[in-house]
Amino acid sequence: MVVQEMTREESIAMLSSRRLARLACVRDNQPYLVPCHYAFSDNHLYSFALPGKKIDWMRQNAHVCVQVDELGANRQWRSVVVYGRFEELPETPQWHRERMHAWSLLEQHANWWEPGSLKPPFASAETGSALIFYRIKIDSITGRHAHDEDDGSG
Amino acid sequence: MVVQEMTREESIAMLSSRRLARLACVRDNQPYLVPCHYAFSDNHLYSFALPGKKIDWMRQNAHVCVQVDELGANRQWRSVVVYGRFEELPETPQWHRERMHAWSLLEQHANWWEPGSLKPPFASAETGSALIFYRIKIDSITGRHAHDEDDGSG
Repeated sequence: MVVQEMTREESIAMLSSRRLARLACVRDNQPYLVPCHYAFSDNHLYSFALPGKKIDWMRQNAHVCVQVDELGANRQWRSVVVYGRFEELPETPQWHRERMHAWSLLEQHANWWEPGSLKPPFASAETGSALIFYRIKIDSITGRHAHDEDDGSG
Repeated sequence: MVVQEMTREESIAMLSSRRLARLACVRDNQPYLVPCHYAFSDNHLYSFALPGKKIDWMRQNAHVCVQVDELGANRQWRSVVVYGRFEELPETPQWHRERMHAWSLLEQHANWWEPGSLKPPFASAETGSALIFYRIKIDSITGRHAHDEDDGSG
């Protein structure tokens, strides 16, 4: 088994092709970590959540880490790690365009997300208005790829 | 879709049945997040790693978060989140017993781990001695389970 660094292009290609990540945020040097669905576009990861600990913590400390992996046959794996910063997309005129952009990206894969009864643009008033849209601005991205020595990738 | 809290017993049962987690650690309020393989025993998660960023950061700040999830059919999912503290199991007489315990747990699933050429107890001198065994002492554990409203779990 050989572990190699992935190029930035390979890492971005993997981020683009996946939808499920894990996201870590921090308060008082204590990390918190949850799965999250996202859509990648133009150096940002777009997502949304209901209010809760994750959102509270990211509002206080925007520095997050996002990780996406893929386990293949023969113990092959790829893993991409992003350092980035939380940016909320509030429901205000200033952020309307970005919020709609987030929605347009995320609704393409509407089946996977949990509040299944929601419909574009933002479902019922009570649930839709509670949804918090945000994006993670990517500061850095690294990736690693483990594969057999004889699979020709090296 | 209904999201319910899991009991502590359900959460521990899930931790016990899985091998792959994601682990987040922190330095200077910046999180770092990686996949890791583990074995659960007696309120601890046992694992090992080669030297690197994860180990460096956990040595400086023992507070970590470990998350294990399972995606099922029909958009069902379960996710368990552990807050815990890093404890290194150094190769000293004092820690020998715990280190061997870690090994005995981890070697039961030797196929999944990456330095595939290692053999019990610690493989070749150069690789084996570089391996860092550690455990995460569980401070708290919570779990959530999402399922259809009509699947009878409620």
